[in-house]
Amino acid sequence: MREILIVGAGKSTSVLIQYLLDQSEKEDLHLKIGDIDLENAKKAGRNHPRCEAIQLDVFEKESREKAIQDADIVISMLPARFHIEVAKDCVKFKKNMVTASYISKEMKALDEEVKENGLIFMNEIGVDPGIDHMSAMQVIDRIRDKGGKVLLFESFTGGLVAPESDTNLWNYKFTWNPRNVVVAGQGGVAEFLQEGKFKYIPYHRLFRRTEFLEVPEYGKFEGYANRNSLDYQSIYGLDHALTLYRGTIRRVGFSRAWNMFVQLGMTDDSFQMQDSENMSYRDFVNSFLPYSPTDSVELKMRHNLKIDQDDIMWEKLIELDLFNPDKKIGLKNATPAQALQKILMDKWSLSPEDKDMIVMYHKFGYELNGEKKQIDSTMVHIGKNQTETAMAKTVGLPVAIAVIKILNGEIKTPGVQLPIKREVYGPILKELEKHEIAFKEQETEYLGYNPFGEVGN
Amino acid sequence: MREILIVGAGKSTSVLIQYLLDQSEKEDLHLKIGDIDLENAKKAGRNHPRCEAIQLDVFEKESREKAIQDADIVISMLPARFHIEVAKDCVKFKKNMVTASYISKEMKALDEEVKENGLIFMNEIGVDPGIDHMSAMQVIDRIRDKGGKVLLFESFTGGLVAPESDTNLWNYKFTWNPRNVVVAGQGGVAEFLQEGKFKYIPYHRLFRRTEFLEVPEYGKFEGYANRNSLDYQSIYGLDHALTLYRGTIRRVGFSRAWNMFVQLGMTDDSFQMQDSENMSYRDFVNSFLPYSPTDSVELKMRHNLKIDQDDIMWEKLIELDLFNPDKKIGLKNATPAQALQKILMDKWSLSPEDKDMIVMYHKFGYELNGEKKQIDSTMVHIGKNQTETAMAKTVGLPVAIAVIKILNGEIKTPGVQLPIKREVYGPILKELEKHEIAFKEQETEYLGYNPFGEVGN
Repeated sequence: MREILIVGAGKSTSVLIQYLLDQSEKEDLHLKIGDIDLENAKKAGRNHPRCEAIQLDVFEKESREKAIQDADIVISMLPARFHIEVAKDCVKFKKNMVTASYISKEMKALDEEVKENGLIFMNEIGVDPGIDHMSAMQVIDRIRDKGGKVLLFESFTGGLVAPESDTNLWNYKFTWNPRNVVVAGQGGVAEFLQEGKFKYIPYHRLFRRTEFLEVPEYGKFEGYANRNSLDYQSIYGLDHALTLYRGTIRRVGFSRAWNMFVQLGMTDDSFQMQDSENMSYRDFVNSFLPYSPTDSVELKMRHNLKIDQDDIMWEKLIELDLFNPDKKIGLKNATPAQALQKILMDKWSLSPEDKDMIVMYHKFGYELNGEKKQIDSTMVHIGKNQTETAMAKTVGLPVAIAVIKILNGEIKTPGVQLPIKREVYGPILKELEKHEIAFKEQETEYLGYNPFGEVGN
Repeated sequence: MREILIVGAGKSTSVLIQYLLDQSEKEDLHLKIGDIDLENAKKAGRNHPRCEAIQLDVFEKESREKAIQDADIVISMLPARFHIEVAKDCVKFKKNMVTASYISKEMKALDEEVKENGLIFMNEIGVDPGIDHMSAMQVIDRIRDKGGKVLLFESFTGGLVAPESDTNLWNYKFTWNPRNVVVAGQGGVAEFLQEGKFKYIPYHRLFRRTEFLEVPEYGKFEGYANRNSLDYQSIYGLDHALTLYRGTIRRVGFSRAWNMFVQLGMTDDSFQMQDSENMSYRDFVNSFLPYSPTDSVELKMRHNLKIDQDDIMWEKLIELDLFNPDKKIGLKNATPAQALQKILMDKWSLSPEDKDMIVMYHKFGYELNGEKKQIDSTMVHIGKNQTETAMAKTVGLPVAIAVIKILNGEIKTPGVQLPIKREVYGPILKELEKHEIAFKEQETEYLGYNPFGEVGN
């Protein structure tokens, strides 16, 4: 039997564990699930005969080393900052390792040692990062194999609510960590390339510089820019690309509405508000508006944000019960972002029957035999229920598949890496297709930003 | 003879040194001017018989200790972060000390030792902080002496160009450190109190939430909020105040125009731009605007900022030569803020004959014998020339006067302090009046934000 150690048994591991258990007879696997909370680990293991649950504190050296020593491969599903503790032991005891997180500097620094020991440390193999890398590299490599040159690469991902559960004016519910949604886009300028020009969008303009995306069968979406588009030039080897843009997908109108919060300062996570605990939702709103002895908070808000009488933006605010003088924030020393998150969670939490949806959209503009062409590639995956969510599935399956492919020696190049090699993305994307995670491609004329070849700005 | 050690002989010390030299016979003073650049120190001393120039590196322990040991009192005119080196020696050798900077945590921590040794460490005794503290506390104490209760305190200061030198559409030139102007308002939310309500303004809205100020004989100005208004509640003992607001003064229209830069992201100091050295002014502007194959940078700018054909805002941009494709930023690894500063310095630097101006405006709302009243207090001071600037005078004179008052035992309460005590502000403000730094008061009905006593928002 091959033993797989899974460190961290959070909600996101459900599909990952289910897949491995489903394969455990055929692949001769034994799972050890370690969590700081033993009950959590037990629940995750579902009393499966090929599964053992243990209590595991990643900062307790002895039990951590013991668990890693016993394993054939280690999956760390801990918050990203804790992976390094596991990774160092994996080097020490010569174990392969898999995570769904971005490669940190500390992780990157292990590369040489990992290679010397012939080990594979596979990272960024969830959905975003993960499936985005694999599906993009597959198309990029195919274009290159034909002798083409990639001129434009744009890539968008969004975690959304499924159409059948889309019941509010924002066309949005929290399908993952709400905090990440509230502070999205903060912490640095969004930098990207358009037709060879470097472009910068400051945070307070981000949600008004969106572009529309049409996804076959699912209609129109919109994308706003991520911060790190330029990183992908070297990762994907896109040296000739004139346009590089990564973004986040929302339903049309979300960003323009979200911008109201940004403009008022409600998404700020850098300071604590006075007496936030006893502040009503109405007080919260009012603290971002000028004082008036006579005018209502509502009118001040309309005036401040220039919201016309017939603008649906207003109804979106009303839907959130934002002007309620009786509902309290109820959080001590809350930042505006934390207070806003509280307000949104009243309305944007998933109901038990709600389903989530992952949407991905890539554009590849390229030149082949003197002709400019474009491939648009899209993937939509809808969750089954609140356990088998689209998010848990698109994160968990690539991790699980990678683990088995590494155990079986199909993935064999050593090093600290992300899934951009053919030996990695090929078999994994093929297996994902069996689980309804598949891309549709459309070939069009090169659309880009400069279809007529004019000298632009 | 009493020896005064001046550490740091920057441009801002000209009036300070001149005043002390003028008083040196009468007060029996000897000045020692120490600067890292001996030539600087010599120039500052003007070959005056009662003045000696020395080379002084504040991080070279031996010469620093020697200089401080020899002195009767020490003035540190170094950048604020270096005061602490001087301050520690002043404790060690039991010397009084004066600075024009905000009290740092490290400085504050010396308070007990300073008091035990009966020493006076006077800080924040320039113009802002400095004259603002003194002039405000004088009025606040007078109101309290009569049995009044301060309900509202607003205080604004601005370093501007004098009306006779006000020759551009922005009604602004750099009269002090340009960098501070470009990054003004960054680094945290502006927090203040209006009629008992806490209010917050995020940076990207700061320059549109201004209020107008009418200064007798000088016309209309505007003020935008500083970050630290609430700090003054405890410093000034304004426990009853319902309104606390500190701000920066500009000529009317400046803030609305400055907001264009803020909106585009041009004042961002948190990241370095790609190839900033070879970027033209036009490229700089364009990097904050969406790509277009056909439209001009000018039209994209107008559209992005919604600038109408007949809006004077546009002329303000043109005046800066912002769309010039030939002028280069010429700075390596520049942040947007640094690049913008470069562009502005072309147009906003003072000409040799230009004069500067300091404007201060306080409002005190108070209740006395059941009646609500308001005192508005204003001060305008115009510089004589480029050496005797309003800035150098309003910073240097209070420092110099404080030094003599401490030497003469008129200021005697020990401790790390700022000038809010009567024994300090009384004699200093009186002496400042002789140098045309004087406040004019107007008594009005209480205007505040709620003149009709309505229950507001």
